[in-house]
Amino acid sequence: MIEYLATHEDASGWTVTVLDQDEKALKEKCAPFTTIHAQGADLSDPDTRAFWIQKADVVVSMLPAFMHIEVAKACLEYEKHLVTASYVSPEMAALHEEAKAKNLVFLNECGVDPGIDHMSTMEILEKLRAKGAEITSYESFCGGILAPESPSNPWQYKFTWNPRNVVLAGAGGAVKFIQEGLYKFIPYHKLFRRTEFMTIPGYGRFEGYANRDSLKYISAYGLDGIPTMYRGTLRRPGFCRAWDVFVQLGATDDGYQMEGVSTMTHRSFLNSFLAYHASDSVELKLMHYLQIPQDSELMELFEWLGLFTDEPVGLQKGSPAQILQAILEKKWTMTEEDRDMLVMWHRIFYRQDGQTYRLESSMVCKGKTVQNTAMAFTVGLPVAMATRLVAKGLVQDRGVLMPLKKEVYGPILKELADWGIRFDERVNQES
Amino acid sequence: MIEYLATHEDASGWTVTVLDQDEKALKEKCAPFTTIHAQGADLSDPDTRAFWIQKADVVVSMLPAFMHIEVAKACLEYEKHLVTASYVSPEMAALHEEAKAKNLVFLNECGVDPGIDHMSTMEILEKLRAKGAEITSYESFCGGILAPESPSNPWQYKFTWNPRNVVLAGAGGAVKFIQEGLYKFIPYHKLFRRTEFMTIPGYGRFEGYANRDSLKYISAYGLDGIPTMYRGTLRRPGFCRAWDVFVQLGATDDGYQMEGVSTMTHRSFLNSFLAYHASDSVELKLMHYLQIPQDSELMELFEWLGLFTDEPVGLQKGSPAQILQAILEKKWTMTEEDRDMLVMWHRIFYRQDGQTYRLESSMVCKGKTVQNTAMAFTVGLPVAMATRLVAKGLVQDRGVLMPLKKEVYGPILKELADWGIRFDERVNQES
Repeated sequence: MIEYLATHEDASGWTVTVLDQDEKALKEKCAPFTTIHAQGADLSDPDTRAFWIQKADVVVSMLPAFMHIEVAKACLEYEKHLVTASYVSPEMAALHEEAKAKNLVFLNECGVDPGIDHMSTMEILEKLRAKGAEITSYESFCGGILAPESPSNPWQYKFTWNPRNVVLAGAGGAVKFIQEGLYKFIPYHKLFRRTEFMTIPGYGRFEGYANRDSLKYISAYGLDGIPTMYRGTLRRPGFCRAWDVFVQLGATDDGYQMEGVSTMTHRSFLNSFLAYHASDSVELKLMHYLQIPQDSELMELFEWLGLFTDEPVGLQKGSPAQILQAILEKKWTMTEEDRDMLVMWHRIFYRQDGQTYRLESSMVCKGKTVQNTAMAFTVGLPVAMATRLVAKGLVQDRGVLMPLKKEVYGPILKELADWGIRFDERVNQES
Repeated sequence: MIEYLATHEDASGWTVTVLDQDEKALKEKCAPFTTIHAQGADLSDPDTRAFWIQKADVVVSMLPAFMHIEVAKACLEYEKHLVTASYVSPEMAALHEEAKAKNLVFLNECGVDPGIDHMSTMEILEKLRAKGAEITSYESFCGGILAPESPSNPWQYKFTWNPRNVVLAGAGGAVKFIQEGLYKFIPYHKLFRRTEFMTIPGYGRFEGYANRDSLKYISAYGLDGIPTMYRGTLRRPGFCRAWDVFVQLGATDDGYQMEGVSTMTHRSFLNSFLAYHASDSVELKLMHYLQIPQDSELMELFEWLGLFTDEPVGLQKGSPAQILQAILEKKWTMTEEDRDMLVMWHRIFYRQDGQTYRLESSMVCKGKTVQNTAMAFTVGLPVAMATRLVAKGLVQDRGVLMPLKKEVYGPILKELADWGIRFDERVNQES
């Protein structure tokens, strides 16, 4: 995002200020881009936020999602446009009329997921509707994982995004979606066993689990009455079955503080979720409890993580989720040799002239280095592009928005393709 | 409780006013007891509460548990003693110093569980401590179920207590206990599979699942440093495995409203938690999903409940838990022929003179009619007795209390025995 805003051909027309709590790290990141003003700032302080927001024409908030609403309120007060990569919260949505009345653009969900998923979907749907197709099923998956070029890793996964959000993924409540006209609900403790598999040409097999919010985009996408609507997260096959072990144990629970954390080891952490036995090993109890066969490769995944070792956790206190995160970060933090990969896949069934068609559209983006990740690329670029559109007055719509209109997704998808972020689309007639 | 307060030999010394939202039902219940003043009153109204609390010397709150705190605050204001059968909430505990300063008794947890469990435990522990025993393990279970005299019922269960609390049992968060010096944690979705079995002489086999709050009574019972502490809920064997099916499906979730409830049937409710399949039956999908063998008696339990029928649920809206409750109430509401049973069981291991002993103490109380239930008996009587002790100035302690002191549990246990609520105790030397 910084590179785009610093080097775009329009860059001479704007001033970019980047604020971060960690001034040193920020200045290192911004050093190659001499036109960028990089500045340390504690944006959890309301006065500091207000000071900087007043100076801007367009504010981009990449703060933790819960802070966007405070930024948005200040943007309303000082009448500034706002761009974020995050989901529109109910609090944000409530600002729609006021933002509209003040002629402001609050453009959210402009990263990759949410973001590029909306944009690429709307482009496909527009094309299908233009030729009179009836859309009968919409499925969309996205995930950030390791690229196959990375050193061997049985999980084919490391943290390429906020580790806490990864550990708590799906824990916010039951998943809702609609399939063949029937509403379906999956509780958290079944989420990672109710997966779908898919193949992406050139990239192999993937597995996806459902996101919480499949229903809420039906109207946003203009798909009212669609029999099947499903949005999910992609991983490599095997990941979900293994992650489910943590869920089954209760190791992703963030609702209480554990006892005796300061002396806890990886092994005793695991043991605290297993029934007491005077002589059976933690390994045996785990396999027995969760019906993991002796020869299952699952156990290798846990061994690779060092879960059965007597290594101290290294925290003084924590919830199960916080402790699990600390253990995982020891192995799931990217090294210089690791490369990440962002994968998006849509499958749409539609009827036209009495025939049913299956459209599959996929996008794969690989990171260049451990700093220039696919995650940074696919989240940062569309946010930067959306910011440019807003700054240049190219967005006519007003209020709290998502990138669902052609004036936004059209130019961004075109520009993303120039940066190598493009979709491969295949259509097959169903028998 | 009403009968006790109306007919006790001390009754001529007091006036008893009973308030209820449903005046008609209340007056019917109180009709046999001419000294009782029965009155309809909306106690959700603060002024109505204050009006009646001002008139009393001792207030007994049998309102829904969340309302006790409002009653307690009014009792502080008007300087009245208070008795409840409910757990001491953090808000209630916070009133301790103020109640003490005002010379008031706020005596809680005086029903059966919590209540008789505390009283009988403290009596046993006092006896063991007096002879110098070291207590190494404490387990205690209690449950309200159907008596074997009831008409045949494969669940051996009906609602004998607040149905909503039964449906949501355990859903409040992870269970914590300590076993052989190791802290153990069980997530909700494993709670009904991590059960213990026990036999009570004369009454057969039972199964128990853990309560949330085992750790918090360690200090209250004076058992600091005890290696094993476990409190749980009793059912007949098989109940927990079957109930777990509802938990696994997500049918006990109270966190969201379902879609299409007004046209929902028992069968379609079940189907909304099962994956879509064009031809497989709900029965087959359920068995496959939760690995229920074809010949399992579990399926009989669900058939007995009418879960697979096309009977309309009969609600206009609801969470999964609310809909499940509505379905269960059709079969789990006690009929004139049904009798309930309250079962309590303690198992304590202790060391004395180099030997280990196992003490088991059990209490079983059966309901007399569908109105005079064991639940009403075992909850109402100790509350009534505690109220009498407070009213007669026989409780010296002050502040927010539980029945842990001999001045309270001594006379109550003695009186309960006269009413037939007594414990059978057996001690065995361990090999």
